[in-house]
Amino acid sequence: MSAPSLPVVREPAELRAQVRAWKARGERVGLVPTMGALHEGHLSLVRLAKAQADRVVASVFVNPTQFAAGEDFEAYPRDEARDAALLASAGCDLLYGPGPAQMYPDGFSTTVSVSGVSEPLEGAFRPTHFAGVATVVAKLLIQAEPDVAVFGEKDFQQLQVIRRLVRDLDLPVAIVGAPTIRTQDGLARSSRNAYLSEAERTTAGKLNVILAAAAEALRGGADVASAEVDALKALAEAGFGKVDYFETRDPDDLKRLGPGPLTGPARVLVAAWLGKTRLIDNIAV
Amino acid sequence: MSAPSLPVVREPAELRAQVRAWKARGERVGLVPTMGALHEGHLSLVRLAKAQADRVVASVFVNPTQFAAGEDFEAYPRDEARDAALLASAGCDLLYGPGPAQMYPDGFSTTVSVSGVSEPLEGAFRPTHFAGVATVVAKLLIQAEPDVAVFGEKDFQQLQVIRRLVRDLDLPVAIVGAPTIRTQDGLARSSRNAYLSEAERTTAGKLNVILAAAAEALRGGADVASAEVDALKALAEAGFGKVDYFETRDPDDLKRLGPGPLTGPARVLVAAWLGKTRLIDNIAV
Repeated sequence: MSAPSLPVVREPAELRAQVRAWKARGERVGLVPTMGALHEGHLSLVRLAKAQADRVVASVFVNPTQFAAGEDFEAYPRDEARDAALLASAGCDLLYGPGPAQMYPDGFSTTVSVSGVSEPLEGAFRPTHFAGVATVVAKLLIQAEPDVAVFGEKDFQQLQVIRRLVRDLDLPVAIVGAPTIRTQDGLARSSRNAYLSEAERTTAGKLNVILAAAAEALRGGADVASAEVDALKALAEAGFGKVDYFETRDPDDLKRLGPGPLTGPARVLVAAWLGKTRLIDNIAV
Repeated sequence: MSAPSLPVVREPAELRAQVRAWKARGERVGLVPTMGALHEGHLSLVRLAKAQADRVVASVFVNPTQFAAGEDFEAYPRDEARDAALLASAGCDLLYGPGPAQMYPDGFSTTVSVSGVSEPLEGAFRPTHFAGVATVVAKLLIQAEPDVAVFGEKDFQQLQVIRRLVRDLDLPVAIVGAPTIRTQDGLARSSRNAYLSEAERTTAGKLNVILAAAAEALRGGADVASAEVDALKALAEAGFGKVDYFETRDPDDLKRLGPGPLTGPARVLVAAWLGKTRLIDNIAV
């Protein structure tokens, strides 16, 4: 029994020709942009895309411009053969694997940036991150011309930045957010979980428990400020290191809510360190 | 004899539906983005687009984000009925006339910017101008999905910024630059020429004469530095006020050339004031 094989294209022109051929036959096309190092979370995005489209393209590109100096661009895990086999098993039809020369040819000098929603949270701690994300995602959407593109709610702020970008530029694509996939103890699936030691991995599972407790308290009418303070204590007790943020925000524009009780929907978002690994997660309220 | 009538759409969805209907019939579509106040220069762009495409859309939108505070956004001439009649006479098939609510809906927060080629010359004197241009042109190209888009060489740096943007984002459109249309005395046609007094209008015609003399000297082997100094003297003698720049640059990346003789192709670009009016022009060497 051999693994299903997956066609791979590296040139934007090949990608566009294939997508246009599908569309000319009346097929809907979905795109799942990834940085590879695929896990069950990514595969759930592919399955969701496949449920909404006839054909699914997954892109695999470790985008240098969304990493700052000192972040893990070099260390980021890369294994295209493994990724291709996983994508094929999830029903993906095509892997788009451009190199830096395809994405950032000589003299490249264009930046797409989104103010507002990209500024707090991750934007405050990784100031160049979302311009890198917005530029590469805009380019991938323009190259692939999908009818629908799927992004995980795990990176909730990224999802909202992309929604804003697509609306603002009138890109003709529907953006779908997919629920976060978790391990049995509740840890959000992430390629960066591979960096955790065994002890850190045990602690990591408590991040979602603490998020869920905060959401429960907020639903019960707790003050935002006190729910956040309780969560920060719980994170410290559980063994987390620095907490970059644990904040309750408007789910659309990501403006901060509180300090009193909630009066409408919210999203609680956290970024916390375990040793040298930075974990992010979020939950709807 | 009635003027030919021109269909007008204001919503991006209507525009896209019409363009896609044409394309589905196998017709090529051209776009000519304008800010209205049309003159013979714009009409030459429409005719050039029509020579390269079956259908031509002209957009008319006075884009606020490419004007700085204190510039002439409010005063910029607007007369859509006149523009529509002129466009129809030149063979245009559709006028796309969105309002600010279509282009910059509530919460709009995306910027497309191009470094490098947009930084000197106009970029140095109008620091926010090209981000406004790049954002609105990217959006118009995404909304209209043309096969070809035509821009005038009169705004030479703008043309190079747009070429760079389209290449960088892989927008599926061919960018065509159109030669500058001039009055009998050589003045480049511009909507802003309407601001000139009669005396200024006479002086304005010398801008192109001085540019042409510099180009001739450079072709003859003159040093770039001395050709530029001679031109600055000639501009002052002719009665021009402040000269923002008179510079000889690489025609692609707009890097400065000289101070010695040219060793390859160049573009000489000028911006100079006459009273309260700022004129720009350029010439190939």
